[in-house]
Amino acid sequence: MKGKNRNAFQNPVRLMFFSSLTEAIKDFDLNGRWLVICSPGAIDRGLKNLIEEVSLTSNPDFFSEVSPNPTIDQIQNLVESLSGKSYDGVVGVGGGSVLDTAKVASMCLRYGMTDVRALLENVSNLSIKTKELETILIPTTAGSGAEVTPFSTVWDPIEKRKLSIDDSRLYASAAAYVPELTLSTPYEQTLFSGLDAISHALESIWNKNRTALTMEFSLRSLEIFNEFMPFALADLSNAKAREKLQIASLFSGLAISGTRTAVAHSISYPITMHHGVPHGLACSFMLPELIDLYIAENPKDENIQLFNEIKDFLLSLRLRDLISNYVTKNDMVKLLPNMKDPKRYRNYSIESLNDVNFLQLIVNE
Amino acid sequence: MKGKNRNAFQNPVRLMFFSSLTEAIKDFDLNGRWLVICSPGAIDRGLKNLIEEVSLTSNPDFFSEVSPNPTIDQIQNLVESLSGKSYDGVVGVGGGSVLDTAKVASMCLRYGMTDVRALLENVSNLSIKTKELETILIPTTAGSGAEVTPFSTVWDPIEKRKLSIDDSRLYASAAAYVPELTLSTPYEQTLFSGLDAISHALESIWNKNRTALTMEFSLRSLEIFNEFMPFALADLSNAKAREKLQIASLFSGLAISGTRTAVAHSISYPITMHHGVPHGLACSFMLPELIDLYIAENPKDENIQLFNEIKDFLLSLRLRDLISNYVTKNDMVKLLPNMKDPKRYRNYSIESLNDVNFLQLIVNE
Repeated sequence: MKGKNRNAFQNPVRLMFFSSLTEAIKDFDLNGRWLVICSPGAIDRGLKNLIEEVSLTSNPDFFSEVSPNPTIDQIQNLVESLSGKSYDGVVGVGGGSVLDTAKVASMCLRYGMTDVRALLENVSNLSIKTKELETILIPTTAGSGAEVTPFSTVWDPIEKRKLSIDDSRLYASAAAYVPELTLSTPYEQTLFSGLDAISHALESIWNKNRTALTMEFSLRSLEIFNEFMPFALADLSNAKAREKLQIASLFSGLAISGTRTAVAHSISYPITMHHGVPHGLACSFMLPELIDLYIAENPKDENIQLFNEIKDFLLSLRLRDLISNYVTKNDMVKLLPNMKDPKRYRNYSIESLNDVNFLQLIVNE
Repeated sequence: MKGKNRNAFQNPVRLMFFSSLTEAIKDFDLNGRWLVICSPGAIDRGLKNLIEEVSLTSNPDFFSEVSPNPTIDQIQNLVESLSGKSYDGVVGVGGGSVLDTAKVASMCLRYGMTDVRALLENVSNLSIKTKELETILIPTTAGSGAEVTPFSTVWDPIEKRKLSIDDSRLYASAAAYVPELTLSTPYEQTLFSGLDAISHALESIWNKNRTALTMEFSLRSLEIFNEFMPFALADLSNAKAREKLQIASLFSGLAISGTRTAVAHSISYPITMHHGVPHGLACSFMLPELIDLYIAENPKDENIQLFNEIKDFLLSLRLRDLISNYVTKNDMVKLLPNMKDPKRYRNYSIESLNDVNFLQLIVNE
């Protein structure tokens, strides 16, 4: 236990809060050459015009070909397209996939890396930093927390696996929160993003790396989701609920930036990889049963009422019915051997989870 | 509004959590020459023996002459005593006064400053950094939040004023939380420290600089104080309550590190300066009335129930009776002209506070 405390918390991302995207972009004062990474939808909604209109930068480059669960090839194409170009900064505007892409692209630019697969397979092999680069992330969903984590998840559809980086050099310089951007998130994406953030909060609670601080981030996040997510789902235009969920998602992100994720995320990845289940659903459908396991092992925890309320809320969403639209129980069971990704599973602190109830967790019968 | 967002939040202090001081000191791995700043009481409780026993450092220097509300002369004496010595780090163990002293001492060492008054009077006049120095702060009370703020308050008893620094170079490298250290805090100090933290949370709420993030820090802090402070006061050995209050105090500290304080702190300083009222009492006795003003101006705030609960808790503590042991109403009224310190008062967002009810706030008649 010598040296730096393994569970020390230090999140370097500058957190900024704005009432509109125009206000945010004016504040960034984007001088020089900027690369903007976003989804195709963001361009449709006028992002390009807005940035060109209100910022000082002349002709930022736009890369908008980011799909959900970005693949190595997509990011490799992006990085190759940047070859020979010089930027002063990267702005990522979007959901978790866009932000993860922007983080990897920024890292490649800063460290002069051109081979994304090599970077993903051995992040410690980085060459030295060749350039300072401002990286500003603007989440448009309330869920991934990607704007404040040092993680990036990239998918390899050919080898049917995902490659994740967990490296402090992935941290953005700044995250900008503009609650009104989340108002256009449709119902399903609102649901799945919120479920992802709820999963982060819980994963950080049943986590061997948890501290008194990450606990408070998680608890506050769960309180907010418990109170405001029903309102956001019932009325997608509820601005107050949207703003609250964005902060709750930030708190969940801060929590996992300290602890990392655990069993639910470990279970989720093969399901998403093989059956295209949206991440937020894949990492949440078994949360009610995981909450039960946690409570059984921590009967004196003073937050049991909150956990039960979150459990009831999750049950009311009928997530197992939803996931059955994507994958059968049998097909999930076949993936069982891949569901104990040691990097995440080892963080899980509940000893009563064994091989028998692990199967139970998946099939719920 | 160009450039960096005025309300951007970025707290660089590494936050560490330990179950005992021994564990913490082992983890710090104090190689080289260290200066330990603490209260005389900490030495009595064995701090010196403990550090010498479990750390690798040989013979750290100890400075234990820190009094509540440290004066310029005391800190000047400390800085002069360090002249010609070279350290690898500074550890501060204590309440807000000790931590404020450690922050100033560390800054003087890092920037080669020897004139504390000059530093306090013109912090922007700093010479360049002459030395890297690890600064680790270990709070022994749950209240000041000083371990995570870039502020230091130093008193000038001759000119009857206080000099405050608000400068990012005051940030410590790390804060270490050891809840068991707060178990020995006696009743009155527990009360006053907790009141200080409650005041920070509220001051950050009725603050022009508040953001969605600082709001959540404050709200969570108030929730915890509301739930656990009565337990801590009823049973000083309640370890769970002590641990919770320490995190609540951290959250309040993070909140004011983003917003700065406001009217309650502005009112408090002359009262403490002229009549020796403990800081936590001086900045909290008028909080119930400030809560009323906030609610009157924000009738739709969704946290009114929490604010009213905190108000009832504060009223139950009979703070106006307590403060009458130190100062009469008349004497407080005489200080009215000094109670609108612009650096803090300008942060206060409630427009219904005017000259008439400002007097009312002080005398409560």
